[in-house]
Amino acid sequence: MATALEKRQFWTARDLQHWPERRRARTINSLSGFKSATLVGTSDLQGHLNLSMVSSVVHLGSTPALMGMVLRPPAANSHTYANLIETQQCTFSQVNAAIYEQAHQCSARYPRETSEFDAVGLTPWTPPDLEWLSPAVEESHVRMGFTLEEEFVLPNDCRFMVCRLRWVDVPANAVAPDGYVAIGETGAVTVSGLDGYHRTHALGRLSYAKADRKLEHLTDMLQGWED
Amino acid sequence: MATALEKRQFWTARDLQHWPERRRARTINSLSGFKSATLVGTSDLQGHLNLSMVSSVVHLGSTPALMGMVLRPPAANSHTYANLIETQQCTFSQVNAAIYEQAHQCSARYPRETSEFDAVGLTPWTPPDLEWLSPAVEESHVRMGFTLEEEFVLPNDCRFMVCRLRWVDVPANAVAPDGYVAIGETGAVTVSGLDGYHRTHALGRLSYAKADRKLEHLTDMLQGWED
Repeated sequence: MATALEKRQFWTARDLQHWPERRRARTINSLSGFKSATLVGTSDLQGHLNLSMVSSVVHLGSTPALMGMVLRPPAANSHTYANLIETQQCTFSQVNAAIYEQAHQCSARYPRETSEFDAVGLTPWTPPDLEWLSPAVEESHVRMGFTLEEEFVLPNDCRFMVCRLRWVDVPANAVAPDGYVAIGETGAVTVSGLDGYHRTHALGRLSYAKADRKLEHLTDMLQGWED
Repeated sequence: MATALEKRQFWTARDLQHWPERRRARTINSLSGFKSATLVGTSDLQGHLNLSMVSSVVHLGSTPALMGMVLRPPAANSHTYANLIETQQCTFSQVNAAIYEQAHQCSARYPRETSEFDAVGLTPWTPPDLEWLSPAVEESHVRMGFTLEEEFVLPNDCRFMVCRLRWVDVPANAVAPDGYVAIGETGAVTVSGLDGYHRTHALGRLSYAKADRKLEHLTDMLQGWED
């Protein structure tokens, strides 16, 4: 632990309200904990590609396989939002340590006709044996295709986009026999706050928790549990 | 990188549909990337405490400060959901490496009258100078209080609970001068899949991305950017 944790700092919502906007945004963005680092790939119907950095992807369910992501307002300014509405399709590519700077650079404001793939030097990839429009990222090790399932307007005018998984492309050696995908072993990174990037170090997997049983540990992330 | 990443595995939604349910759940849960590890504390109006492990907390906005979390169906079985509806209040406490096993154990199904604090050996904490009902976790270094703002019913009957930040209690030394809170330095962990826990290793913070400017790096997470 790099810092002494005993000295505490307490703020109420009223305190935070009086801070400069950027400082407040940095603090609040840090407090929700570690986040996924996803490159969201879309295309318009004319084939103009877009790639954007999103740290709000969240698991929703596995039967059917659903994930959600939050898009910031104004929705009209987001090429990702416009393309997702136009084509009802997108991809998620996990950001890894070799490409995290290029991924972050995708959050810069490029003109609509500029492809972030070209601007930052990443390679569009689509599954070879499937009709699929939206580009994933060749340099990402874990990538997926989605169709748009539903859209919710949140109280602050953010959009919560619910997406349905259509295909997955992962490294075969990162899949444990019980289905767990060891994304940490593929170099996937995690984000904290607006701009903090981190590699991970596995503590281990824990057995299914039951009220009357002691937890067991798997330290080899690729071992898997027996059902 | 522990594994060769070249050999690929490709699945369509149709393939996944035919898998045993548990295997599919483990895979899909892994694919959304790293997740926050949050202990959600609630109480009913009689003062029965509840603590549950949630890996779906997501940042929604900072003005006002909003976070969301996904609660699994059936909502009727979730003590967290029932208490949140009853009291309109909850806390989020970041899980750190010293308490991740106790946090995971909170996901076991305990009877409603059992407090997970007692069952797993964690200590309820509330801010001393505030009227506040829901317990946070003493052993957590980063903890927050929320009121319920809005509830959405998702297509798979999950609930997306939008919560509004009311107070924050953090270690003073983990706050950078620009507002960034270095949660990795407090030992906060991240989750992948249903049961994989990880410490983090900072790659660094990156400057605000602009189309015409090269990114800059901060490797000291407590340094901060100048506005």
